[in-house]
Amino acid sequence: MLYQRYRETRAYTESLCEPLEIEDYIPQAVEFASPPKWHLAHVTWFFEEMILRPHVPNYPVFDQDFAFLFNSYYHAMGPRALRAERGVITRPTVAQVYQYRAHVDEHMQRLLQSDASESVSSLVELGIQHEQQHQELLLTDLKYVLALNPTFPVYRSDFSLVSNHNQDNGWLEVAAGLYPIGYRGTGFCFDNELASHQVQLSDVQLSRALLSNGEYLAFIEDGGYRDFRHWLDEGWAWVQREEIEAPLYWQHIDGEWFYYTLGGLLPVDPKAILAHVSFYEANAFANWAGKRLPTEFEWEVAASQLDWGKRWEWSASAYLPYPGFTINEGAVGEYNGKFMVNQMVLRGASSATSPGHSRTTYRNFFHPPMQWQVSGIRLAASV
Amino acid sequence: MLYQRYRETRAYTESLCEPLEIEDYIPQAVEFASPPKWHLAHVTWFFEEMILRPHVPNYPVFDQDFAFLFNSYYHAMGPRALRAERGVITRPTVAQVYQYRAHVDEHMQRLLQSDASESVSSLVELGIQHEQQHQELLLTDLKYVLALNPTFPVYRSDFSLVSNHNQDNGWLEVAAGLYPIGYRGTGFCFDNELASHQVQLSDVQLSRALLSNGEYLAFIEDGGYRDFRHWLDEGWAWVQREEIEAPLYWQHIDGEWFYYTLGGLLPVDPKAILAHVSFYEANAFANWAGKRLPTEFEWEVAASQLDWGKRWEWSASAYLPYPGFTINEGAVGEYNGKFMVNQMVLRGASSATSPGHSRTTYRNFFHPPMQWQVSGIRLAASV
Amino acid sequence: MLYQRYRETRAYTESLCEPLEIEDYIPQAVEFASPPKWHLAHVTWFFEEMILRPHVPNYPVFDQDFAFLFNSYYHAMGPRALRAERGVITRPTVAQVYQYRAHVDEHMQRLLQSDASESVSSLVELGIQHEQQHQELLLTDLKYVLALNPTFPVYRSDFSLVSNHNQDNGWLEVAAGLYPIGYRGTGFCFDNELASHQVQLSDVQLSRALLSNGEYLAFIEDGGYRDFRHWLDEGWAWVQREEIEAPLYWQHIDGEWFYYTLGGLLPVDPKAILAHVSFYEANAFANWAGKRLPTEFEWEVAASQLDWGKRWEWSASAYLPYPGFTINEGAVGEYNGKFMVNQMVLRGASSATSPGHSRTTYRNFFHPPMQWQVSGIRLAASV
Amino acid sequence: MLYQRYRETRAYTESLCEPLEIEDYIPQAVEFASPPKWHLAHVTWFFEEMILRPHVPNYPVFDQDFAFLFNSYYHAMGPRALRAERGVITRPTVAQVYQYRAHVDEHMQRLLQSDASESVSSLVELGIQHEQQHQELLLTDLKYVLALNPTFPVYRSDFSLVSNHNQDNGWLEVAAGLYPIGYRGTGFCFDNELASHQVQLSDVQLSRALLSNGEYLAFIEDGGYRDFRHWLDEGWAWVQREEIEAPLYWQHIDGEWFYYTLGGLLPVDPKAILAHVSFYEANAFANWAGKRLPTEFEWEVAASQLDWGKRWEWSASAYLPYPGFTINEGAVGEYNGKFMVNQMVLRGASSATSPGHSRTTYRNFFHPPMQWQVSGIRLAASV
Repeated sequence: MLYQRYRETRAYTESLCEPLEIEDYIPQAVEFASPPKWHLAHVTWFFEEMILRPHVPNYPVFDQDFAFLFNSYYHAMGPRALRAERGVITRPTVAQVYQYRAHVDEHMQRLLQSDASESVSSLVELGIQHEQQHQELLLTDLKYVLALNPTFPVYRSDFSLVSNHNQDNGWLEVAAGLYPIGYRGTGFCFDNELASHQVQLSDVQLSRALLSNGEYLAFIEDGGYRDFRHWLDEGWAWVQREEIEAPLYWQHIDGEWFYYTLGGLLPVDPKAILAHVSFYEANAFANWAGKRLPTEFEWEVAASQLDWGKRWEWSASAYLPYPGFTINEGAVGEYNGKFMVNQMVLRGASSATSPGHSRTTYRNFFHPPMQWQVSGIRLAASV
Repeated sequence: MLYQRYRETRAYTESLCEPLEIEDYIPQAVEFASPPKWHLAHVTWFFEEMILRPHVPNYPVFDQDFAFLFNSYYHAMGPRALRAERGVITRPTVAQVYQYRAHVDEHMQRLLQSDASESVSSLVELGIQHEQQHQELLLTDLKYVLALNPTFPVYRSDFSLVSNHNQDNGWLEVAAGLYPIGYRGTGFCFDNELASHQVQLSDVQLSRALLSNGEYLAFIEDGGYRDFRHWLDEGWAWVQREEIEAPLYWQHIDGEWFYYTLGGLLPVDPKAILAHVSFYEANAFANWAGKRLPTEFEWEVAASQLDWGKRWEWSASAYLPYPGFTINEGAVGEYNGKFMVNQMVLRGASSATSPGHSRTTYRNFFHPPMQWQVSGIRLAASV
Repeated sequence: MLYQRYRETRAYTESLCEPLEIEDYIPQAVEFASPPKWHLAHVTWFFEEMILRPHVPNYPVFDQDFAFLFNSYYHAMGPRALRAERGVITRPTVAQVYQYRAHVDEHMQRLLQSDASESVSSLVELGIQHEQQHQELLLTDLKYVLALNPTFPVYRSDFSLVSNHNQDNGWLEVAAGLYPIGYRGTGFCFDNELASHQVQLSDVQLSRALLSNGEYLAFIEDGGYRDFRHWLDEGWAWVQREEIEAPLYWQHIDGEWFYYTLGGLLPVDPKAILAHVSFYEANAFANWAGKRLPTEFEWEVAASQLDWGKRWEWSASAYLPYPGFTINEGAVGEYNGKFMVNQMVLRGASSATSPGHSRTTYRNFFHPPMQWQVSGIRLAASV
Repeated sequence: MLYQRYRETRAYTESLCEPLEIEDYIPQAVEFASPPKWHLAHVTWFFEEMILRPHVPNYPVFDQDFAFLFNSYYHAMGPRALRAERGVITRPTVAQVYQYRAHVDEHMQRLLQSDASESVSSLVELGIQHEQQHQELLLTDLKYVLALNPTFPVYRSDFSLVSNHNQDNGWLEVAAGLYPIGYRGTGFCFDNELASHQVQLSDVQLSRALLSNGEYLAFIEDGGYRDFRHWLDEGWAWVQREEIEAPLYWQHIDGEWFYYTLGGLLPVDPKAILAHVSFYEANAFANWAGKRLPTEFEWEVAASQLDWGKRWEWSASAYLPYPGFTINEGAVGEYNGKFMVNQMVLRGASSATSPGHSRTTYRNFFHPPMQWQVSGIRLAASV
C-alpha cells in the first residue's frame, strides 16, 4: 500500500508536466523558483540518495553527477549546484531525467515489495511528502516563469489556480482558554509540527470567508499602496523599492484589471478569492480594514470549523520552533529547523497543494515579501 | 520633578560627548549607525516638534530646516533626510546643534515650570525615554565608527563597555504554568509592553550567568564558524558572505585575540562577559552547546531571580505584537508597531544602557545579523 | 547570386545548431551572451523587419509578437524584450522558430528572385553580414553556457575552436610614415570602416606569431596575476574582484591545466595559440614581457604580411569614430556608432568567425574585461 | 626660487580651506570625491614619503600611521586606506593635519635651502604639480558634498566657479596636415604629455566660444534627455539608470532652473558658460546639434588661437598612451599610465584649476559619466 502511494505520487508529478514543452523545463527566472527539470530530478535524487544507496546492496547509481546537480540545500551531502545556476544546466536532457525517474522507480518498486522495515517506510513516506511539496512548487515556479513571457502562454485552459469562490461567510468566535497545539496523531507529520504543547489564547473572531479580489480592490482604489500608514516599515520600503501596486500577476490595462493565470491572461474576477499577496500586503490590508491577521495558534484552534484549503493563509506568527522542538540526526534533520528565522507562517493549503498533503497542524513558511505562492488573507479581530 | 529628570537626561547626553573632537560628530559609517551630531539634534527635534510646537503658543522654531534634517523615520511629519546621507551633512555645525539644544531646553524649562497637563507630561516622559534610547545608540554608533580607524582611537580609557564579569552561576528552574506577561505597573512603558496577557510555559531552566568570552572562544576554536550544522541557513549565508570569524571588534593578531573597545584595543579577557554577537551567532553557539536561547516570555518570568543588565540578551522570540496590541494615533504611534517583522527580541539591558532605562518587561529588538549593540548570550534548556 | 549567398548563410547557421539538444537553445547565462534560439530568431527578424515588411506588398508577418521578442538593441523599432530576460522566454518553441525561419526564407527567395533593386540588395547584404556575426556569437555564447555545466558537455568532439598552432615566427618591421586606413574597396563593409583617411605611424615591429599557451603559462607561473605592477588600475581591480587567475575556461586540476572546449575538457596544449583572454590580460602580459599591443592602425598596415585569422587580436586602440564617420539615417544607423565608448578594438578574425566574414579593415570591439570571444595576443614593440 | 613656489603652493592650498568649518573637512559623499582633510594630508604625505624619507638623513617621520591613512593609489608603497572609507577616519583631527603640514614644510624648507640636486628638484616640482591637482579636486569634491545639504551652504559668496562668460565667438579653421603633438619644452610636464610625435589631421573647424547654459537649455527643452537617438548606448543607459535630466547641480524649482554653486543656490545664467556635464552629455549635445567634439589633437593644434581655460573641455579622444610612452621606474611611475583605459581626455583648464597649472599639451582624463569637474563643451565640425 505504501508502494501504491509512491507510484501514484510519482505519476501525479509527471501528469503535471504533460502540458509542457521541453523548453519550459529549463529556465530559472529568479533564485527562489526552480525549473521543472530540476524539481523532477531533485525529488528523485531524494529517493536515490536517502533510501536506495543506503538500503539496497549494490544499488547501481544512475549517474554520479546527478547527486551534485540535483541536491538542494543538504549541506551534509557535499557540494551543491549553485542554486542560482539551476537554469543554465541544459544537460542532462529532459529525456534523461525521465530515464532517471524510471530507473529509481524500478529499484524503489523492488525495495518496497521486499523490505517492510520501519526505517525504510518512514523514509519513503518522507520522500512522498517531499515530492508532494515539490509538486506545488513546480506549479508556482512554472507560473512565475511563464508570466514573464509577453505572449502569456497557456499551461492548461481549464486550470487557473485562482478562480475559486468562498462558500462561507460571517465570523467564527473562539473563546479565550488554553488549547493544545501541534500534531498528536499517529500518521505522518513534519518535525516542525511535533512537540505538541499548550497555548493560551484570548477571545478572538476569525472571518469564515477568505478575502475576495473585490474586497482587495477597494484597498487598492483607496490608495492603499501609496499610504505608508498601513504598512510595516520594511513593507513600505519593499513597496517603494519594487514599485508594487497590486498583487503579483495583476496588470492594469486600459483601465481594467487583468491577471495572468495558468489558463492565460484573464479579467480579475471580483468574487474570486484573492491570491498572490505577500505578508506585507496581507498585514497592510488588515491594518487598513481595522482588523489583524490571526496567529497560527488561533488558526489551528479554529480550523476544524473553517472552510480552508483554497489559499495559503498568512498568519501573524513568525516561523519559530515549538518549545521542545528537536532536530533529527543526519541530512534529514536539515529539513525544517534551519529555516526558523525571518519567515512568517502560513496555514491551510492552496489550490496548488497536492491532494492529501494538508493538515490543520501543517506549518508552511515564506519570507514576508514573497508573493508567488497561492497565498491569501483571512482576517481576525480581538474581541 | 519631571523637569529635574528632563534636565538630568539632557545633561547626561552632553556628558557622553565630552570626550569627542568635533570631527567625531560627523561621519556615518553604515546606514544603521548615525553620527553623534545627528543624535544630539534628533532627540531635541523630538521635543520641539512633538511638544513645543503644538503646546507653546508662538513658540519660535529654532530653524525650519532642522525638522527636515533631524527627523528620523516619522513619515507623518513630512519628507525625511535620507537616512543613508546623514554623514554628509556638515552644516549646521556642532556648535549650532548645541545652540539648538539650549534653545529648546530654555523653552522646555518654561513649559514644564508652568504646564502640568497630563498630555504634556506624558509626551515629555516619552521624550526623555527617547533621548535615553539615543544615548545608548550614540555610544554604540560611535564605537562602530571609531573601530574603523586603524589607529584605534581611545574614547575614554576607563570606559570599555565590555569588561564586566558574571556575579552568579548555576541554573535557575522555572516550572511549567500560566504566567502573566507585559507591563502592569503605573509608570512609563512603551506601547509594545502593554496588552498584558497570559502565556503558558513548559518546564525550563535558564543559566544564571551570561556567556563569557572564554566559553565563546571554545566554540571558535572548535571550528564553530566553519561548520554549517550549527547555523540557521541565513546565518550560514551571512557568515560566508561577510566572512565572519568572530564577534564584532575582535581581531586575531599574531596568534592572540584582541578587541577594540571604547578604551582602545585590548586583549580579550576570557572571564569577561561576551558582547557584540549577532542573533545568528547566539543561536549557533546554543546549538553547538546542546542548549537553546530562552524565549522572551521565559526570560521575563525568570528575570526577578536573575542578575541581568550587563548585556542585551538575544531571545528565541521574534518581535511581534502582543495580543491586543494597539497603535496610538498620530506620529507617536509610529514608535514601535511598524518594526514588528524580521527582528528578534532582546531582553535585559546593557552596560551602554542609560541608568533608569530598564525594566523586566522592556522589549528591545534588532535584525538577526546585527552585532553592534552590546549584545550577549544567556543559555536555556527545556527540562 | 545574392540569393545563393543568402541561402548558404542561412543553412550554415542551422548547421551550427545540429549538435544541439532542444534544452541547449534556451538558457541565458549572463547578460552579454544570448541563447541559440534567440540568435536564430533575431537574425530572421532582421530580414523580416528591415526588408520584407517595407519592401514586399502585403507581406504576411509570421507573428506580431516576434518583433518584440527578437529585436535586440534597435530602439527605433519600439519596445525591446529586456536583454537580461531572453533566457526565460520558453515560447515560441524551438520548432516554431525554425518555422519562422522557413517562412522568412520562402519570402526572401521570392523577393530576391524578382527584385534586383540596389536598396534591397544592400540591405540583404547587411542582413547576411549580420547573420554571420551572430553565427560567431552563437558559438561563443553556447560555449559560455555549456562551460558552466559541471559535466563538461561535448558540442562536437572534432571542434575545439582553440587547437590551432602558429605557422609563422619572428618579427615584421613597419617603417614610419603616412598610411591609408579604412576600407577603400567597392564590396561590403561596415560603416565604422568607412571614411578612409591617413594616419602617421612611427617605426614599429609586430610579432609574426600569436602568443601561445606555453608563453602565457610563463606569465602565470611568474605570478603575473598577483603583481599589480603589470596591470592597468581597472584591470587589477577586475582581477581581484573576480578572482581571475587564468584565461576563461582554464581550470587547475591536481597540478595540471585543463580548459573547457566545445570538444569537452582537454589538457591545455602549450603549443596551441592562446585564446579567451581579456584586454586587461593582454595588456598586462605585454607589460610583463616588456612589449606592448599594436594599435589598430599598425595592425591594418601590417596585415597583408601577417598570418592572421585564428584569434581576434586585442589592439591598443579604443573604439572611436574615424574622422568623417557619419551615421546612417534610420534603424540601420544604430549599428555601430552608438557603441563607440569604453570598448577596445580587436582586429583580425577567429576560428569561430564565419568563412568570408573578415577583412583587414574590419573593426571588432569589446569591453576590456570580456574574455568569452576567441581573443588572443599579438605583441608589438616600438623600434 | 623652487622653495618660493613650494611655499606659495602650500599656502594657496590652505587659503582654499579658510572658509571651511571643521565639520566640512570630514565627509566623503562618494567614492570618487575625497574629504578636504584627506587632500590636505595626502599632498603632504607625498612630500614626506617621496622626498623627505629617501633624501633627508634621520628625517623624523611625523606619524607612522599617516603613510597608511593618506596614501592614495600607490600600490608600491604598501597597504592603502580603503578609498571608500576616507570619510569615516575622524582622527587625526584637522588640527593635527595642519601640524603635519607644518612639520613637513619645516623640513622641506631646510632641504630646499641646502640641496640643489636635480633629482630632488624634479621630485619637488612633481610634488608641487601634484598639490595643485589636489587643490582643484579639493574644490570640486567640496562642492559635491555641500551640494547634498538641503540648506545649500555658501562656501564664499564671491566664488561661484561657473559664472564666467565667453569673450570670443565664431569658428576657427584648422587645415589638414601633419602636426606635432605633445610637450617639446624644457619645463615641467607629466609623463603622459611626453613622446612628442606627429599626427595627421583632416580639415576641421572649432568653435571659438564654449557652449553657454542658454544653448544647452535649448537641448533640454527639445527633449534631449528623453530621445535615445542622440546618445551613445552606454550614455543612454546612464541617463535612464541615474534619472539624469540636466547637468549636475541643476534643479528645476517652480518652473525655473537653478544651480548650486560654491556661492550658494543661484538662478542659471543663460549667458554663462555651461559646466558640470559628462562626456555622455557633451557627446549627445554635439549629435543633437549636428556637430561633434574635437579630438585632443585638433584641440592641441588649435589651442594657441583659442580662448581657453574656463572649462575642462571634453574631447572625442580616449585616454591612451602616445606612441613611445614609457613608464618611470618606482612609485612615481604609477602616476598616469595605469589609468589609460575607459577614460576620455579633457583639454584646457577650468576656473577651479590652480593658477600656473595649465598647458596646451596638458591631458586631463575622467570616466565618461563624471560630471563633478568644471567640465564644458566646445563644438567642432569636419569641413
